[in-house]
Amino acid sequence: MDKKIFTIFGGTGDLTYRKLLPALFNIYSFQQLTDFEIVIIGRRPYNNQEYVDITTSWVKEFSRVDFDELVFEDFTSHIHYFQMDFTKLDAYDDLARFYQEKRFSEHIFYFAVAPRFFKNIADGLKTIKGLKKASIVIEKPFGEDLKSAKELNKELEASFGKENIYHIDHYLGKEMVRNIMTIRFANPMFSAIWNKDYIDNIQISALEMVGVESRAAYYDHSGALRDMVQNHLLQILSIVAMEPLGPNSKLSENQLEVLKQLRIIKENEIASQLVLGQYEDYLKEDNVAVDSKTETYAALKLFIDNKRWENVPFYIRTGKKLNRREMEVVVTFKKANPDAEANVLIIKIQPNEGVYFKFNIKKPGNSDEIIATQMDFCQSCDKTFRINTPEAYERLLLAVANSDSSMFSDWDVIETSWKFIDDLVAKANKKQFELKQYRKGSNGPIESTLMLQNDGFSWFEGFQKCRKCECE
Amino acid sequence: MDKKIFTIFGGTGDLTYRKLLPALFNIYSFQQLTDFEIVIIGRRPYNNQEYVDITTSWVKEFSRVDFDELVFEDFTSHIHYFQMDFTKLDAYDDLARFYQEKRFSEHIFYFAVAPRFFKNIADGLKTIKGLKKASIVIEKPFGEDLKSAKELNKELEASFGKENIYHIDHYLGKEMVRNIMTIRFANPMFSAIWNKDYIDNIQISALEMVGVESRAAYYDHSGALRDMVQNHLLQILSIVAMEPLGPNSKLSENQLEVLKQLRIIKENEIASQLVLGQYEDYLKEDNVAVDSKTETYAALKLFIDNKRWENVPFYIRTGKKLNRREMEVVVTFKKANPDAEANVLIIKIQPNEGVYFKFNIKKPGNSDEIIATQMDFCQSCDKTFRINTPEAYERLLLAVANSDSSMFSDWDVIETSWKFIDDLVAKANKKQFELKQYRKGSNGPIESTLMLQNDGFSWFEGFQKCRKCECE
Repeated sequence: MDKKIFTIFGGTGDLTYRKLLPALFNIYSFQQLTDFEIVIIGRRPYNNQEYVDITTSWVKEFSRVDFDELVFEDFTSHIHYFQMDFTKLDAYDDLARFYQEKRFSEHIFYFAVAPRFFKNIADGLKTIKGLKKASIVIEKPFGEDLKSAKELNKELEASFGKENIYHIDHYLGKEMVRNIMTIRFANPMFSAIWNKDYIDNIQISALEMVGVESRAAYYDHSGALRDMVQNHLLQILSIVAMEPLGPNSKLSENQLEVLKQLRIIKENEIASQLVLGQYEDYLKEDNVAVDSKTETYAALKLFIDNKRWENVPFYIRTGKKLNRREMEVVVTFKKANPDAEANVLIIKIQPNEGVYFKFNIKKPGNSDEIIATQMDFCQSCDKTFRINTPEAYERLLLAVANSDSSMFSDWDVIETSWKFIDDLVAKANKKQFELKQYRKGSNGPIESTLMLQNDGFSWFEGFQKCRKCECE
Repeated sequence: MDKKIFTIFGGTGDLTYRKLLPALFNIYSFQQLTDFEIVIIGRRPYNNQEYVDITTSWVKEFSRVDFDELVFEDFTSHIHYFQMDFTKLDAYDDLARFYQEKRFSEHIFYFAVAPRFFKNIADGLKTIKGLKKASIVIEKPFGEDLKSAKELNKELEASFGKENIYHIDHYLGKEMVRNIMTIRFANPMFSAIWNKDYIDNIQISALEMVGVESRAAYYDHSGALRDMVQNHLLQILSIVAMEPLGPNSKLSENQLEVLKQLRIIKENEIASQLVLGQYEDYLKEDNVAVDSKTETYAALKLFIDNKRWENVPFYIRTGKKLNRREMEVVVTFKKANPDAEANVLIIKIQPNEGVYFKFNIKKPGNSDEIIATQMDFCQSCDKTFRINTPEAYERLLLAVANSDSSMFSDWDVIETSWKFIDDLVAKANKKQFELKQYRKGSNGPIESTLMLQNDGFSWFEGFQKCRKCECE
């Protein structure tokens, strides 16, 4: 394998400091990839040493390996800070010269910038002659809607070739998202009952306690539907709901199939299948329009029109400034009898990783009354597991370096998701869909609770603290 | 409800001290039954106070409630020691007079003695005139073989009426044995796959670390097949394997149905489906014949000839002087694929009570390798559960007092079990079936391990120590 050159546009941004550099440092520490250089593109006038000085504390804080000064020094000798304004086309001539001087040839361009700059960078890169091989890594959201995504895709595919474009949805690289597949398919206890006959409803929640923070300028143009639902939540939904992978199946093909079967929400159903919310004082945040109609919370009730999922509601929700931080998939099974509670399988994705299972036992004592109890496998409680678990970005950066596209979104998947979300947004706009206010630190708008209540369900709001139990 | 008179034959025996009196004291402490008297039948010349003095330390040690001196004093005021030799027919005249003097009329006679005395006592009781109502409680094993059991049953039914005979198999009163039914039937995750399509094999183990101890005189005439398999293990097997209970089903009817479907082991199959063992130095134990051929270990491979269990082996084993004490049901499911381990559900009955579930997850890290992990619900780790869990004997004594026969063995069930065991013993004797020696503290004869190994299985030999994990 030739030396890989990672060029990061947005090299002084949060993503680079918090995720990309710590991930590359981990990869380097484990010697999973050692022959690489990192070119950091930034507008600020740093030299290499100044940039490295800034990154040190970030890497210390966010990499999972024990920080070793000597290893870090070795690592940073591969970092090259390159000052440029990437929106200026002629700046790319200098970049090209820099590459030539250094004899950097096998390129991975990482677009760690707001989507509106994707086209600028693509245009600039096209002017660089003699790139031996170039992979493009693009962060979600890919485009701002179906139209812009299509244009962007067309342009990138024409310039770099379809097979060289890696659409990152880092949830696809997350340990527990990949684990959903193992849990579903490697356990007959679950695979045997993964269908409408046994499942009552499925919930996918991505709950945040933070607000828009430093991302307000971007977020206020995007909102929860485009920022989270179109990509992360539909990704996970498709993995939870897709047909089993055969020996020659491609993950994204099975995902695509099920996304195409998502039932379009009709105009007259929007009121009962969509809730949009905005947290109180969102309008007072910096870089947010004073009359912003951007949703910071979205809850949807979805159906998948195929045999497996006939009439099984999928409830998905995401929001900011909520009462807990948790990303989880909750599968509620049909009750065995009216006296018993439902069996519930919970796959916790972040920040806690684990599998929880609520089931029924006889109430200890003289009666044969049924009560619910829980078993759990807390993966993130176990230190050895934690240290051995790579961050999503490690897995994904390594995959790009190895030209392995299996953990990335296909354009078809992105397009299908955008179609669904665009349609929904258009119908909501047409109806002047009401944005519900919700209190900071609450569990979101009351309308979201009511949406499930009308169906006889309720959002899973977390387990009570688990027993601290020491066995034999 | 009239005052109940518990008369315990064998009142100075282990069962009375360890189980019956502590159970009655618990029932009394919880005020579940207060209007009763206890008549203790013993040969030794104690007076009431002497007998109470002896029982105090036993009750202190073996009752689950906090020992309260005053409550205990109240309790013991209901105890009447009555000296007699219950093998002497004329001694029952004195007993009859005693009852008359005390105006004791509503009788529960508890046969806490070796089976060979059952007939003596029944004959004696028949001579007592004017017993208003008498229930007979008989310990397992009921008889020594099919023939003696039939004779005994005929006699008891003629004397006391079928409906007044309570055959105790105290495993039927055990918390986790009753829980098997709840776990099977109240959880679709289990009930949906409780059949040959999903289950590879089922194991039922009753492992003891103790030897014959003080029971040698009885045990050497009985052995593991008659002492444990004929009753406890076939009881549990029938509950694990029976068809679901309908709203009007009677537990014992469903048990009977499946016991009748137990496939008779043919002579030429005995070698591959039965292992009998004797622990080293068993012959040196007190009260054991020097040339005893009594088995202290038995392992069987059984099949149930019905649609649900076609070709699913049930492996059952029991033995003394083994390497651990554990009674458990282990359900091993078929593998999802050759790379995955099997899902395993373990119901622990004693001394630990709980439910354990082994399943597959993705190995944390960069691969998508599958590894097995476990979830557990440790019921006995939880103090509140423990205190609230009645001992089997409490539940059963209360049931007798309430004339509730639902937790007792029916004669039909006992008869069917004896038929199966008698047939097996006869065939083994005919073949001069070899008794295998095994080391004390081992997991039994190697032949038992090999019996499963030949089928591609292995005995479940306990979990590794479980993680001590403190969740959020």
